[in-house]
Amino acid sequence: MSTTTPTNAKVNNGVNVTALLGAREALEKAPEAAQFKWRAGCEWLNGTHSRSAIGAFFGLGAEQSRDKTFTVEADHPQVFASEDNAPTPVEIVLSGLASCLTAGVAAVAQRRGIQLHSVKATLEADMDLQGILGIDDDVRNGFGAIRVHFDIRADASEDDIKALVAQSQKRSAVFDVVTNPTSVFVTVN
Amino acid sequence: MSTTTPTNAKVNNGVNVTALLGAREALEKAPEAAQFKWRAGCEWLNGTHSRSAIGAFFGLGAEQSRDKTFTVEADHPQVFASEDNAPTPVEIVLSGLASCLTAGVAAVAQRRGIQLHSVKATLEADMDLQGILGIDDDVRNGFGAIRVHFDIRADASEDDIKALVAQSQKRSAVFDVVTNPTSVFVTVN
Repeated sequence: MSTTTPTNAKVNNGVNVTALLGAREALEKAPEAAQFKWRAGCEWLNGTHSRSAIGAFFGLGAEQSRDKTFTVEADHPQVFASEDNAPTPVEIVLSGLASCLTAGVAAVAQRRGIQLHSVKATLEADMDLQGILGIDDDVRNGFGAIRVHFDIRADASEDDIKALVAQSQKRSAVFDVVTNPTSVFVTVN
Repeated sequence: MSTTTPTNAKVNNGVNVTALLGAREALEKAPEAAQFKWRAGCEWLNGTHSRSAIGAFFGLGAEQSRDKTFTVEADHPQVFASEDNAPTPVEIVLSGLASCLTAGVAAVAQRRGIQLHSVKATLEADMDLQGILGIDDDVRNGFGAIRVHFDIRADASEDDIKALVAQSQKRSAVFDVVTNPTSVFVTVN
């Protein structure tokens, strides 16, 4: 990408590509500002029901506060003898994958001068419960496979629409988290 | 685990261990019922803002409907020239990891006869934005590492509390999704 490329003001997908390209240029010169830390706090409510709070993060070399705190609740469904107060943690992860790819489609479309009309993603993930229930140690706890289907209406050819999704996938943070291993370090008290 | 082990009715963490053990026994005899499919639909709203809907899933050999649809919104923050209408997709994934481990702690504590008083998890994940911005192809798009810290008050020794978290981690679906690779198949239109 070159910052001299037109930023396609003729289309409006609600993404400020000029600002994003400026940020890219700034971070290229100051890679330490590109080091972010994302956070979540989670409080157990009862049973399998919990509430996560999402607020401040670190980035651009400084603590970044928000003027609000977001919450995400999770629970298990009634077929697991729970109260179904909220989506399951695995469904929440699917929504994170969906929203990351969708935001990417909008940003890439803006960059490429493609006006979007609608973007809908449908995700389905297989899970063999013999894993988490400890019935079969050869069965993993997580997803077997995830299928994502995009239905996109835009002023572009089918090939250009497919290329939007491919580029989004190539630069998606959550796609990377799901498809590649990440180290998780857990400490207690 | 043996189903003849007492289910510790003396403690109450809000988890129906008797029902869970019954489900485990039933699924051991009918592994096809353990094949679940979790789903999410996502709709682009504007810019990087989207809304995911979570409702029906497949499991126990049948479509499972809920009497409600959950929604999870996502967006990017103002430092990315976005409107900060909702948490970022990566923060949503962190909340999914937190809630999965937390639900596991409650279930294992109930199974082991440990009364919980409070469970709080704090998560922080490193991300080098040079990845998603395409500045450096050697930098991954997702998290560098994730740190999870649990602060648990319970009627148990420190070692027993640590063992709760270790067992939850061992059987957590989202912990597996994050720490191990999962195939994602994307199709368009």
